[in-house]
This record gives sequence, C-alpha cells and structure tokens, in this order.
Amino acid sequence: MEFKAVLKEKASYIEKLLKEYMPKEEGYQKTIMEAMNYSLSAGGKRLRPILTLEACKSVGGDYKDAIPFAMAIEMIHTYSLIHDDLPALDNDDLRRGRKTNHIVFGEDMAILAGDALLNYAFEVMLLGSMNKENPNKYLNAMYEIASAAGINGMIGGQVVDVQSENKKISKEKLDYIHNNKTAAIMIGCMRAGAIIGNANDNELENITKYSKNIGLAFQIVDDILDIVGDESKLGKKVGSDIDNNKSTYPSLIGLEESKEEANRLIKEAKEALTQISNDTEFLSSLADYIVDREY
Amino acid sequence: MEFKAVLKEKASYIEKLLKEYMPKEEGYQKTIMEAMNYSLSAGGKRLRPILTLEACKSVGGDYKDAIPFAMAIEMIHTYSLIHDDLPALDNDDLRRGRKTNHIVFGEDMAILAGDALLNYAFEVMLLGSMNKENPNKYLNAMYEIASAAGINGMIGGQVVDVQSENKKISKEKLDYIHNNKTAAIMIGCMRAGAIIGNANDNELENITKYSKNIGLAFQIVDDILDIVGDESKLGKKVGSDIDNNKSTYPSLIGLEESKEEANRLIKEAKEALTQISNDTEFLSSLADYIVDREY
Repeated sequence: MEFKAVLKEKASYIEKLLKEYMPKEEGYQKTIMEAMNYSLSAGGKRLRPILTLEACKSVGGDYKDAIPFAMAIEMIHTYSLIHDDLPALDNDDLRRGRKTNHIVFGEDMAILAGDALLNYAFEVMLLGSMNKENPNKYLNAMYEIASAAGINGMIGGQVVDVQSENKKISKEKLDYIHNNKTAAIMIGCMRAGAIIGNANDNELENITKYSKNIGLAFQIVDDILDIVGDESKLGKKVGSDIDNNKSTYPSLIGLEESKEEANRLIKEAKEALTQISNDTEFLSSLADYIVDREY
Repeated sequence: MEFKAVLKEKASYIEKLLKEYMPKEEGYQKTIMEAMNYSLSAGGKRLRPILTLEACKSVGGDYKDAIPFAMAIEMIHTYSLIHDDLPALDNDDLRRGRKTNHIVFGEDMAILAGDALLNYAFEVMLLGSMNKENPNKYLNAMYEIASAAGINGMIGGQVVDVQSENKKISKEKLDYIHNNKTAAIMIGCMRAGAIIGNANDNELENITKYSKNIGLAFQIVDDILDIVGDESKLGKKVGSDIDNNKSTYPSLIGLEESKEEANRLIKEAKEALTQISNDTEFLSSLADYIVDREY
C-alpha cells in the first residue's frame, strides 16, 4: 500500500475511535457538545493521535492502553485551533474549507467549547488511567501531555507567536515558537505513548529525539509550503506568512537552507529509530512523508 | 476568634501557597504568566481551596496531601472567571473593583491566560500525585475535579446560563444551572479532599451532601444579595439580575421562600456533618456563615 493510503487508513481508525469517545449530543448541554464535535470531526491528518499509538507500538507496548491518550491529544490540538481562530487571535472564518467554530456557534460557545475540550481531554485520560495495574505509569504519561500543552509547551509557543506578529524576530525566538507551539505536543504525545508501552530509558530518549526532529521539520515544511505550495492541494491560500510579515524559516535563513535543515532533521530522526526495539517501519516512512508532503 | 477572622486567616494561608505554586514571571512567557498571576492574586474568599483542605481534615486526613488539589481548584475557578468576563460572554470591565484580565492584557492574552490556568491546574495536580504510595487515590481525586469542572459540571452550567440570558426559565433549569455552575465545583473539590483524606463510604456520602447543599445555598444567597445586599459591602452594584432580566431563586419562588430554602439546605448540610469522624467545627460555622453573609 502507498504510504498516503496507510496514513489515511490510520486517520479513519482514529476518527472511528473519536466518535466513541465523544459525548452524546443530548440534554441541556446539546449545543456545547455539538460545538465540540463540530471541530473534532472536522478532519485533518490526525497525526498526533497516530503518533501516540505508534510510539506505544514501537517499543513493544499494547497500543490499546494508549488510546485514551491519543484521543486526549487530538482534543487538546482541536481546542487550540478553536481558540486560535477566534476574532481576538487569528480571526479566521475558515479552516480546512469549513466555517470555523465561532462562525457557526458564536464566539461565546466557541470559547466554552475550547475550554470544554481541554477539560474533557483530562477526563478521558483519567478514565483510561484509573484501576490499572501500574497507575504511576499513567500519571507520568498524563504529565507529559499536560506539560507539553501548557505554558512551557504549546500555550507558551502560541503566546510568543501572537506577540511576534508583524515583527522581525531572531532565529532563536523562532526556534522557541516552533519548538513549543508545534513540536512540544508531538514530543509529549509520543513520550506518553512510549511510557505507556513500557519504553526503557534509551528508547524513551530516542523517541524524544525522533519526535522533536519531526515536529520541528513539520513546522519548517509548513513555512516552505506557504511559499512554494500548491493552493489546490493545500486547501488554503499560500503567501499568507509574507502578507502578514511573519518571520519564518525561509525568511530568516532562506528557502534552500530551510529545505536542507528539514532534511537534516528527518535524517537524524530516522537514525534515532534504529535504537527502538520493535516495529518502526511506519515511523520511518512518516519521517520521509513529513519532508516530501505537498499539503 | 470571630468566624470572619478565621476565614480571612485561612484565605491568607491559601494566598501564600498560591504564590509558591504559581510560575515565575520570566523568559519569553513573562506576559502570560503575569496575566495568570494578575487574576489569581485578585483576592476573593478562597472558599474552594479552603473547602478542599477542610474536607481532607474532617475525615482525619493530612491536609498537606490535598494542597496541590486546593491550588488547582482555585486556578480552575479563576480561569472560568477570566473567560466569563470576556466581551463575548459577560463583557465585564471590573471584578472585585479591579480591571478584568482582558482590559489589562487584551482579549487574546486573556483567552490564553484562561487556557493556561486550566492546563496548569492539571500540571499541579499531577505533580502532587506522582510517586505517592497510593496513586489510585490521587487519580480518583483528580477525576472528581476534572468531571466537576467540565461539560457535566461547571462548563455545562455556564453554557445553559449563557443560553438562558433574557429568558424566563423553569425552576428545574435554574436548579440545573446552580447545581452545575456553582455547586459542582464545591462538591468536586470537597470529594477530592475527602478521598485524599481516606474517607470511608459513609463519610464521602455525607461530605457530598454537605457540599451540594452549601453550594446551592451559596448561589441562592448570591441571588438574594443581588436584591437586598449593601453595595458598599458587596463591592458591586446590586439589582443587576433584575436589570438583566435574569431568572433567579427570588424571581421564581419569591424572596422569603428563597431565604427559607437556603436555611433548609444549611440545616441539612450541618446534619450531614454529624456523620463525619473528625474535626468539623469549621465546616459547621462555614455553613452558618454562608446564609448569614452580607457579601
């Protein structure tokens, strides 16, 4: 099977699981649950939940134990998109060709739906951690997710990104934004998956290296695609970074150098995989896909 | 010591602890941390963290074990106030006589500071739960907080409250709002404290009854004070519920009947305390204070 088809199949599996995990739209909370489900079912690559399960499998764990964490990471990713799209932040009306949450449900419900998804992520992880043989393992995995999503991770990166709008920033600051806004969640979810899969110290170290590198490479490729990408494949306008005067890898170090940096990160990521005991074929192909992708 | 002084002393202790638990305002995230600390240090009764520690003590537990959960519940309460005050929700410029978060830091930072506080609450609880002798106890306590704060608790109540603005609603719906928007968090934090304090089933049941009753009574008294309260003592304008055409206990069942209902709830709450083994003197006085309070 072509890798794109493998990825699509895995995304479908995640979507089936998400439907099972989401609250039913009923009773007094019908509207908020509709708003939560609207954004959670809006598609996307489902990369983060896939990475969570694959990290667990790659160290020989039972991926089923990591499912609640995979669900949670997609809920956290989705809440961050809902809040990012709000008028007070990026003010986007469309995402993946669909109206954004606040356009459909109003700003008040969009704020609350985001809050509800973040909170629900922890409810789901906690339910998946209670009454297990090794509760400390699950507590450690949950802490990986929580710290990756917070001020020393995703939110921290998002804040600095917001504050850097229309400003030329240093490469150091751009690295901080990329490492936190994008890579931290990928590192957190893969470390959580690996911990649940009983990774040893060496494996955990190499899962961390792999996820850090593909996270940063993913963001650099995003920046590159905003310049050279095909709008019909991307499903969004290109050139928005230049229009918004945004500092990016290409604007700071050049287009060719950015491609080289992404390739170097992916090469290192694949080297890290050689230290992992079990099935890493998917993760290796995924690393290649991340630099070769067209959308 | 007069009870008000006891309450104030306990609030001061909570504020001292909050300072220790809050992130330092430094580095790239300085602004978001300032925004988080601004609202978290804005005062208030600190009722929820106090209840968490007292619930733990009342069943003979070591309140120190419950401190991270007490901190977390105040962070969750504070994030909900920051988001409630936003222009898209209540659009309030002032809270407790100080400018609201979005007035000082902007709407974008206020949204992110709220998100950050909710996320940080879980980080703090997780750090306080790892490497303990009985991790399942802490997982259970965390789940109490998480479910009380989510769509089947605080957020659920808030959503229905928002949707009921300028509408006459049924007493059943008003009870749903009060029970979820206000009482759920009080129940959740007291149950968490009691679980950490190793409550037996009977104690947990009675802590639940106590917290449910004082939570609902607290909200009914809030409604009453909005009619008969002294603005100088309350620190806010009275009559806003009537001005906003808001359904309240007094508007639905009358002022006297509302007072009677609050008194009945408090009497029952104090009866529940007789089933608790250890020191319940504070909780008993608190129940009286909740109906007698003037602000």
